[in-house]
Amino acid sequence: MVTKTVDLRSDTVTKPTETMRAAMAAAEVDDDVLGNDPTAFRLESEMAKITGKEAALFVPSGTMGNLISVLVHCDIRGSEVILGHNSHIHIYENGGISTLGGVHPRTVRNNKDGTMDLDSIEAAIRDPRGELVYPTTRLICLENSHANCGGRCLTAEYTDRVGEIAKEHGLKLHIDGARIFNASVALGVPVDRLVQAADSVSVCLSKGIGAPVGSVIVGSKSFITKARRLRKTLGGGMRQVGILCAAALVALHENVAKLETDHKRAKILAEGLNQINGLRVDIDTVETNIVYIHVVEGSNISAEKLLKNLEEHGILMMQESSSSIRIVLHHQISASDVQYTLSCFQRALTGGHDENNGN
Amino acid sequence: MVTKTVDLRSDTVTKPTETMRAAMAAAEVDDDVLGNDPTAFRLESEMAKITGKEAALFVPSGTMGNLISVLVHCDIRGSEVILGHNSHIHIYENGGISTLGGVHPRTVRNNKDGTMDLDSIEAAIRDPRGELVYPTTRLICLENSHANCGGRCLTAEYTDRVGEIAKEHGLKLHIDGARIFNASVALGVPVDRLVQAADSVSVCLSKGIGAPVGSVIVGSKSFITKARRLRKTLGGGMRQVGILCAAALVALHENVAKLETDHKRAKILAEGLNQINGLRVDIDTVETNIVYIHVVEGSNISAEKLLKNLEEHGILMMQESSSSIRIVLHHQISASDVQYTLSCFQRALTGGHDENNGN
Amino acid sequence: MVTKTVDLRSDTVTKPTETMRAAMAAAEVDDDVLGNDPTAFRLESEMAKITGKEAALFVPSGTMGNLISVLVHCDIRGSEVILGHNSHIHIYENGGISTLGGVHPRTVRNNKDGTMDLDSIEAAIRDPRGELVYPTTRLICLENSHANCGGRCLTAEYTDRVGEIAKEHGLKLHIDGARIFNASVALGVPVDRLVQAADSVSVCLSKGIGAPVGSVIVGSKSFITKARRLRKTLGGGMRQVGILCAAALVALHENVAKLETDHKRAKILAEGLNQINGLRVDIDTVETNIVYIHVVEGSNISAEKLLKNLEEHGILMMQESSSSIRIVLHHQISASDVQYTLSCFQRALTGGHDENNGN
Amino acid sequence: MVTKTVDLRSDTVTKPTETMRAAMAAAEVDDDVLGNDPTAFRLESEMAKITGKEAALFVPSGTMGNLISVLVHCDIRGSEVILGHNSHIHIYENGGISTLGGVHPRTVRNNKDGTMDLDSIEAAIRDPRGELVYPTTRLICLENSHANCGGRCLTAEYTDRVGEIAKEHGLKLHIDGARIFNASVALGVPVDRLVQAADSVSVCLSKGIGAPVGSVIVGSKSFITKARRLRKTLGGGMRQVGILCAAALVALHENVAKLETDHKRAKILAEGLNQINGLRVDIDTVETNIVYIHVVEGSNISAEKLLKNLEEHGILMMQESSSSIRIVLHHQISASDVQYTLSCFQRALTGGHDENNGN
Repeated sequence: MVTKTVDLRSDTVTKPTETMRAAMAAAEVDDDVLGNDPTAFRLESEMAKITGKEAALFVPSGTMGNLISVLVHCDIRGSEVILGHNSHIHIYENGGISTLGGVHPRTVRNNKDGTMDLDSIEAAIRDPRGELVYPTTRLICLENSHANCGGRCLTAEYTDRVGEIAKEHGLKLHIDGARIFNASVALGVPVDRLVQAADSVSVCLSKGIGAPVGSVIVGSKSFITKARRLRKTLGGGMRQVGILCAAALVALHENVAKLETDHKRAKILAEGLNQINGLRVDIDTVETNIVYIHVVEGSNISAEKLLKNLEEHGILMMQESSSSIRIVLHHQISASDVQYTLSCFQRALTGGHDENNGN
Repeated sequence: MVTKTVDLRSDTVTKPTETMRAAMAAAEVDDDVLGNDPTAFRLESEMAKITGKEAALFVPSGTMGNLISVLVHCDIRGSEVILGHNSHIHIYENGGISTLGGVHPRTVRNNKDGTMDLDSIEAAIRDPRGELVYPTTRLICLENSHANCGGRCLTAEYTDRVGEIAKEHGLKLHIDGARIFNASVALGVPVDRLVQAADSVSVCLSKGIGAPVGSVIVGSKSFITKARRLRKTLGGGMRQVGILCAAALVALHENVAKLETDHKRAKILAEGLNQINGLRVDIDTVETNIVYIHVVEGSNISAEKLLKNLEEHGILMMQESSSSIRIVLHHQISASDVQYTLSCFQRALTGGHDENNGN
Repeated sequence: MVTKTVDLRSDTVTKPTETMRAAMAAAEVDDDVLGNDPTAFRLESEMAKITGKEAALFVPSGTMGNLISVLVHCDIRGSEVILGHNSHIHIYENGGISTLGGVHPRTVRNNKDGTMDLDSIEAAIRDPRGELVYPTTRLICLENSHANCGGRCLTAEYTDRVGEIAKEHGLKLHIDGARIFNASVALGVPVDRLVQAADSVSVCLSKGIGAPVGSVIVGSKSFITKARRLRKTLGGGMRQVGILCAAALVALHENVAKLETDHKRAKILAEGLNQINGLRVDIDTVETNIVYIHVVEGSNISAEKLLKNLEEHGILMMQESSSSIRIVLHHQISASDVQYTLSCFQRALTGGHDENNGN
Repeated sequence: MVTKTVDLRSDTVTKPTETMRAAMAAAEVDDDVLGNDPTAFRLESEMAKITGKEAALFVPSGTMGNLISVLVHCDIRGSEVILGHNSHIHIYENGGISTLGGVHPRTVRNNKDGTMDLDSIEAAIRDPRGELVYPTTRLICLENSHANCGGRCLTAEYTDRVGEIAKEHGLKLHIDGARIFNASVALGVPVDRLVQAADSVSVCLSKGIGAPVGSVIVGSKSFITKARRLRKTLGGGMRQVGILCAAALVALHENVAKLETDHKRAKILAEGLNQINGLRVDIDTVETNIVYIHVVEGSNISAEKLLKNLEEHGILMMQESSSSIRIVLHHQISASDVQYTLSCFQRALTGGHDENNGN
């Protein structure tokens, strides 16, 4: 009998809190497509301030945030973007930048820490003298924290150096900051400092900080003007969207502070799991709220079975590969959830008597 | 001093009612991108039933609903769609089907009642034997009620006949049913009958029936599977979207019945305006909630000034052309709002003493 | 027994003359993709001069010439082009501007003479203030002579006025001048005058003037620089292309003068056919080398059978619709071919004894 | 004073031979767009036979050959192609598959020999269960011989194994066989065996075998039918193209046999250059007609100056990077050209007395 659900599939699964629900019920709204929603304005102003940019725009998802950003920077036919081979944009967004936008991606290998070597980035920039056969490089994308690299963080210094390369070659820099709050908390560096070199940033509000829906993109006023138009083209303009923005404002005010706890619990979980025979976690890489669990070859259970076994105990996770599992912490995972998860893993790996699921 | 606001710019401007706000605050939600949101499921099931289709999908806007529908039906490179020269998709959606989807539009002239002549539709279908130089016709689009044609309605019989043409040539039929509820109420024909011949329909919930955000597209299961994927590509997948769906369910249950009143008030407004010297309204075309007001040549005030004059009295409208104004009724426009609007128009046209704004 | 072939399907069917063959055999060539082919340079310089533009580029076909021109002028995502509903680009080029280039076409009705009403063009230009929902108009396209309108010619004055509209709104003007030499000869106006208002022109060399392959696009230097790059992207860069350019130079020098004869023969043919019972030709519209033949309702033979009947006598033509046939004159159709064609038509329509094909 | 030109920039620079010129002058031609050119048919039949495929199509360039092939295999929106990070399609074709076709490229690292590791290819194939966030893998591309990897050849066995992976996953396999004749000659394996596993191949006729213009793509009949249509869309349909095909047929018949000599001369050049102080050539990689020359650090001359120095002696080459130069052999480079080139390099590197350019 499942007694509880511990949903570790993603930090997108959080439910709105009572405060958020109250805020949504009371939200002052108007037609945002016609440019009149006051709550959307408030959220956008606040996000512009947090990120140190001129302007901001609420969008339905992080995918749309990245798609709009890349397409606005690459608005001329024949554009190429440099991005990590393991980046969310390249791997998990349906290839939308090419499929819908005709933008040609040029990947550079992500190091284990989410960075790309600076000289590799520079080498990937197309020589304008070869324009007869080359697309035109117009954009570099970074991801901070980097999901596929275990939630690791890019420092402000690293980002600054990429920004310098971009400037030197007349390129723009976009940061997929879906989890930029996690990076900020983990590094102890304010968000605006972390994204100082960027021309645009996409920030998710429905991940770690727990808003029900939405992301915000930030940049210059002219960038946001173009972004607003493209949002309409994509069908991302929403009418009384202040409802969602009200919840996002609560999330911003209440939950950024909780991320530190998520990171601590991720570390505890990682260390606990690493001590279980048959599992391996690279502890040093657990900088934020993501933990990759490797099922060691020769273990008595496969990743797939492990996933099912724990699901029977109410623990939901994502399979990453045939031998690895991803878990993501968030503010609705408690200390006791962490202990419960560890004990369920322990039992599954040792094949021991299962008290919860037993007779 | 403005004492009240009468917002006639569009039926998208309605504010969520108290019942909707309560429903949003209490909504049971989960991650809809992961396929788990129970309230989204409920709304989608209900909409599938209302339209008589197998499956449904919530999307952030009518623009996205149409864009996804056209792109799913035209998923092969080299597709052409036949649609009205005056249709919302062709005129007001940024050309997204070409810009993002590479679909080639072939327009047929809309008659004043929103129909296209059947033989013109048939003549616009490309002969497959000419495929060396022709794109492949894959889709016909109708719009019901037809916004740019004054909100006029297509009958079930007309739609059936277009459906027969589509079938005969192996094409799909999509209906932009942004205001299909208005058409249904005005014609006294259930929605499922009106869209019986269609392979897909896009229905707005944030127009006449007053939900804060969103549209639903309906069609076969396989259509919706493809639509779900494309929604993700476009960035229209939203996490705890049940919040918005809860409000939309209330809108469905409470407000469809109110559309008849909107139509009556539109008629009253139309007739009243038509009696004012300097204005002309084609009364016979006012079938639903939209009224086009023509400022007669030789009138003592231009459309532009008229708009500004009334805005000073709290009446918001849309300018359509240099000599015409569009107003749209909705459930938050009362009988007294209609009278107030008429009197303000009267005063503006006669240039008479303005009691409200006076001394 | 077929004794001869009279190929009236198109003016693209001409065979290279002996002079052209000799020129190709002797052509001085080099790698044009690397920018070194002297004969390509010569042709391009000459075409730039003839059209009064700064620069020129040889391309494999008229379709590519138009495609490149539209895409260069509309190089920013979200562009719209205004063009005739009956224009070659809209009807016969596979919708390539949308399919490959994402450009949204906005059609204006072509009059019977190939023009579009000036106020209709102006009305189709998008108001930049509506950019949230409108694509951006960037280009107007004309076609001179206009194939689908019977080869009729646009005057320099008409084109100038369209050019003024374009300038006033910051748009570009492209002329599909596939048969601009025909228009020039028919109007007695030099090509450079006819295209004076245009920012770019695409001119076919493999139509009336009889080169085996190719078109040339002309425009400003910066336009041609972008065009050269896009030609490479499309795969239209060819190595020792001077071979083809050598033949085109001969065509330019030898065959422009012959177009007048083609036009006269077209007129003779048109008048002759119009006197045959069961056929109708709108004589007044035959301004150049194209003749549309209408098979009158109640005629004793259908267009389809007529086509087959004449094919048995070696006369090749194109069926245009269920009741019409298109024929195109060119320099390899002699005066006696015209008489032979008339007599074959006569026989087919009267059903009389067929001496050529008989016993 | 320059006494001769030795053009080593590419094997595209060859001039048509006298036999080719005679063949072009005498070619039997007709309108190939209308499907009537007999010489195009002959070339296409012969190429289909050589490659062991059902059908073939002449196109203006290798770039168009690859573009059409990728787009035909990826004709559904949301397609991804797996290809080498260093492949010609990815690096030198303007990103056309994305820019024009919306296809998303997924690169796999090319080894030094032009192969990609089989398990890396397999790992790059998208799991269809992840289709909500993944594009659909539809195609794998190989390049044989591989230009950027020094003209190295893929064996039939390697290609077969990639073909097996493709089949297992329902993917297509395209080979960029711009220099497949070089690979065939170098490996001593017939072309049809080398491309046996491929669904399509693009073969250049204007590279090593010396035709003035053109490539041919081969595949199944249905592939070629789609390719013919797309060729028209791109503007690659050419009228009396038999002129070019006649030269290509001569090239096929006369010059394939000469490739072996090119390869021997490349080897001689490579070995000679490698013995010059300040230069390094990786001899083992010189399998065909391409030689990469590295200017050793500490050499007395930079790559750029070396290039200029030799140009003054009539030797044309391509700079590859700040420290490397690419040269390509072809049938118009004689044994004495090779010796002349070696002596010019020798002189440039030793800075010795320059007899040719002297007094």
